[in-house]
Amino acid sequence: MSHLPAELLRTLGEIVGPAGLIDDPAAMQAYLSDWRNAYRGRAALVVRPASAEEVAAVVRACYQAGVPLVPQGGNTGLCGGSIPDDSGHQVVLSLTRLTRIRDVDAGNETITVEAGVVLQQVQEAAAAVGRQFPLSLGAEGSCTIGGNLATNAGGTAVLRYGNMRDLTLGVEVVLPDGRLWNGLRGLRKDNTGYDLKHLFIGSEGTLGIITAAVLKLYPAVRSRTTAWVALPSPQAAVALIGRMRALCGDRLTGFELMSRQSVAFVLRHVPGCSDPFVEEHPWYVLIELSDTLPEAPLNAMLETGLGAAFEQGEALDAVVASSEAQVSALWKLREGISEAQNHEGPSLKHDISVPVSSIAAFIAQADERLQQAFPGVRIVCYGHVGDGNLHYNISKPVGSEDEPFRAQAEAIMYLIYDVTQAFAGSISAEHGLGQAKREAARRYKDPLELELMRSLKQTLDPTGLMNPGKLL
Amino acid sequence: MSHLPAELLRTLGEIVGPAGLIDDPAAMQAYLSDWRNAYRGRAALVVRPASAEEVAAVVRACYQAGVPLVPQGGNTGLCGGSIPDDSGHQVVLSLTRLTRIRDVDAGNETITVEAGVVLQQVQEAAAAVGRQFPLSLGAEGSCTIGGNLATNAGGTAVLRYGNMRDLTLGVEVVLPDGRLWNGLRGLRKDNTGYDLKHLFIGSEGTLGIITAAVLKLYPAVRSRTTAWVALPSPQAAVALIGRMRALCGDRLTGFELMSRQSVAFVLRHVPGCSDPFVEEHPWYVLIELSDTLPEAPLNAMLETGLGAAFEQGEALDAVVASSEAQVSALWKLREGISEAQNHEGPSLKHDISVPVSSIAAFIAQADERLQQAFPGVRIVCYGHVGDGNLHYNISKPVGSEDEPFRAQAEAIMYLIYDVTQAFAGSISAEHGLGQAKREAARRYKDPLELELMRSLKQTLDPTGLMNPGKLL
Repeated sequence: MSHLPAELLRTLGEIVGPAGLIDDPAAMQAYLSDWRNAYRGRAALVVRPASAEEVAAVVRACYQAGVPLVPQGGNTGLCGGSIPDDSGHQVVLSLTRLTRIRDVDAGNETITVEAGVVLQQVQEAAAAVGRQFPLSLGAEGSCTIGGNLATNAGGTAVLRYGNMRDLTLGVEVVLPDGRLWNGLRGLRKDNTGYDLKHLFIGSEGTLGIITAAVLKLYPAVRSRTTAWVALPSPQAAVALIGRMRALCGDRLTGFELMSRQSVAFVLRHVPGCSDPFVEEHPWYVLIELSDTLPEAPLNAMLETGLGAAFEQGEALDAVVASSEAQVSALWKLREGISEAQNHEGPSLKHDISVPVSSIAAFIAQADERLQQAFPGVRIVCYGHVGDGNLHYNISKPVGSEDEPFRAQAEAIMYLIYDVTQAFAGSISAEHGLGQAKREAARRYKDPLELELMRSLKQTLDPTGLMNPGKLL
Repeated sequence: MSHLPAELLRTLGEIVGPAGLIDDPAAMQAYLSDWRNAYRGRAALVVRPASAEEVAAVVRACYQAGVPLVPQGGNTGLCGGSIPDDSGHQVVLSLTRLTRIRDVDAGNETITVEAGVVLQQVQEAAAAVGRQFPLSLGAEGSCTIGGNLATNAGGTAVLRYGNMRDLTLGVEVVLPDGRLWNGLRGLRKDNTGYDLKHLFIGSEGTLGIITAAVLKLYPAVRSRTTAWVALPSPQAAVALIGRMRALCGDRLTGFELMSRQSVAFVLRHVPGCSDPFVEEHPWYVLIELSDTLPEAPLNAMLETGLGAAFEQGEALDAVVASSEAQVSALWKLREGISEAQNHEGPSLKHDISVPVSSIAAFIAQADERLQQAFPGVRIVCYGHVGDGNLHYNISKPVGSEDEPFRAQAEAIMYLIYDVTQAFAGSISAEHGLGQAKREAARRYKDPLELELMRSLKQTLDPTGLMNPGKLL
């Protein structure tokens, strides 16, 4: 039986119809944990409105009844931001029925989509009009645009195209009291007051619920080259990206760093992967160049850049993909890391960023302090060099047990965050805070900034019913 | 004599020293009107602190005394945002002594500068390390970074690089109560809560005073080509930019539209300008392609694009600059428009934007309704096609008097804004609201959005002392 007042239940049923209400405990399960099953909660009800107007009506009814809401998209987040607490009093508001692509304006290079549209569908809709929507990340086949907006998603194309925030021109938001704000502008210049959209993007559903957005499209890529390069050190990777950026400019659309340990896990656990080189090397980067020209001389540019890098000792070996299959194989080495690490026991994930110029020093210092404090732990370090974003994940020492290692998780996390802070970095580069990093954010963020955030929350959501216990 | 309490005057003098206080009426004049002399006010005092700490102390002292502040940069704004009212009770806080470039981090592609640094100096500091800072606008030799941030400046490079907001990674802000928030992060990914910097950028000094910022740098451009193209219509310009974007992608860094009327005024009034073509044409675009490669085949790409455009009737004639002198001559035709128009009597300026796909329909409808309502007015329409941003300025009919025309200014403005609104556009694309468009914003903006803006103002500046009478 639901904890909700009967009148609210009836009202919600009238708004969304029988297809939009889930109160059967078994049917609710899919909405109560994330894809990794790392977070689990309980809920009074799952509501699935089918339009922005229905979302507004649901929020208004819950606001009037004083019932807290947890907005949810594809449930692929890594910080538990879309999972209710275990009180059983919260209502999960799933946006996955808001699946309309409302408009594609090729001339304006924009697409207007609802929150429940899956990222990959937006990519496909853009391709259908000869454009691209460049946001790209591992979960793109199941994450939703609403979740991408709520967490300001990042991924591998940020180097050239920016984060989700940078790809968004306008948003439609249901405010905490149920009013619908139509900020769906498709304008590249609009200086008529405070930029409200940036307040809602990245706010993880704590200030309102984004129901639709106008996103930027870009010219389609018509040629691409992908290379796998062995390097002696992270410092060499930073030097190489500087060299490639200066040479190739906007053509450099991917530059992914991986430690040998990261690649070794993939080679061991992900079927069908093989090492592009005979010898082992300490570090690798995956480089992608792309161009709107059909036959751009990308290989020649790559050779120029790598030639100089070999001379300077920045690169040790390199292979250029000569077929789509090889491109996929190289990306699989990069994208398999997260899954591969799960086979080696608990994976302690840390999604940090530092200035690009501090990447090498950060890794050196974090590695050294970790190995001193927790001898034998295996460091799985990889990430997006151009954004200074490292996934600095930790596996237990070889042959050790899971539980003692798990007991050290918090100490390991704070050690890594301490080093991050010493380099003026961020403890959450692209994953958000959710419930996972709320406490850590209190420890590391400027108290004045936290105070400003709290006062904005208080202004926009005075009753505190929007995704309580997340972010702040 | 100043209207300020003697104790506040003494305190301010202690903070900034004699060099930082201006109360002599003659010496104050330069701070009491903008460069066009379109706005004029009075002030109790002009204060010129020399550091962020001094700004904080000045703001704190004024906050405690209840004295309103008007922050001011290079005074090149077009909407009167930096000019005090005529009460004589406001204090002008000039940021022009905050001139330090605090840091250049070539490896991170960032530069940290104080609010009073002139835009051109930032461009030069970037060039000195082989990078570019791409913001580019007419006033770049005298506008300051603080003003660029306060108004979210745009200009000609937004097509590729975005507005000032998009070029900013972090800000340092003195809050209305004098506390200093250090948000000077140089991170390209940071998802640890609400993005406060976007609240202050574009807020025209009404929520706090930005004292420094971390800005993005980009690889230096090493080849460039510039062309002047005659076109039959705005629709042809929209078709041509679509064609060039698809072909050249990020190499397309400039695409400026000008009506014949705009160019005719320049040819008549700006010395040393000549028409690149023998025949007159109804519309022109200035196209710029650029690349990080030293000898990129930009002319060949341009020819490919224009060749197709000629076939489709989108282009009527074209000339490619073959020297730096010719490049300058072409840009002079574009950049001389604003000045040239002043020779033809009062210039009614409207800085609007619409979706790129609506540019042609907007111009057709606005032209028609204007000529019906105000026969004979001369329409000087030019702008940045890629941003949908048109400077849709109006001069009086030939042979008519100034005053009757000026009396129609408001009616003309509202006619143009009505058409803008009908195309889901913005009444201020890149100039901000200041005091000029405050009333119009009330008329055209969604009341709910205005309510949200007012509640943010109330939260951050409850005493209302920050640039009162501007924006809201």
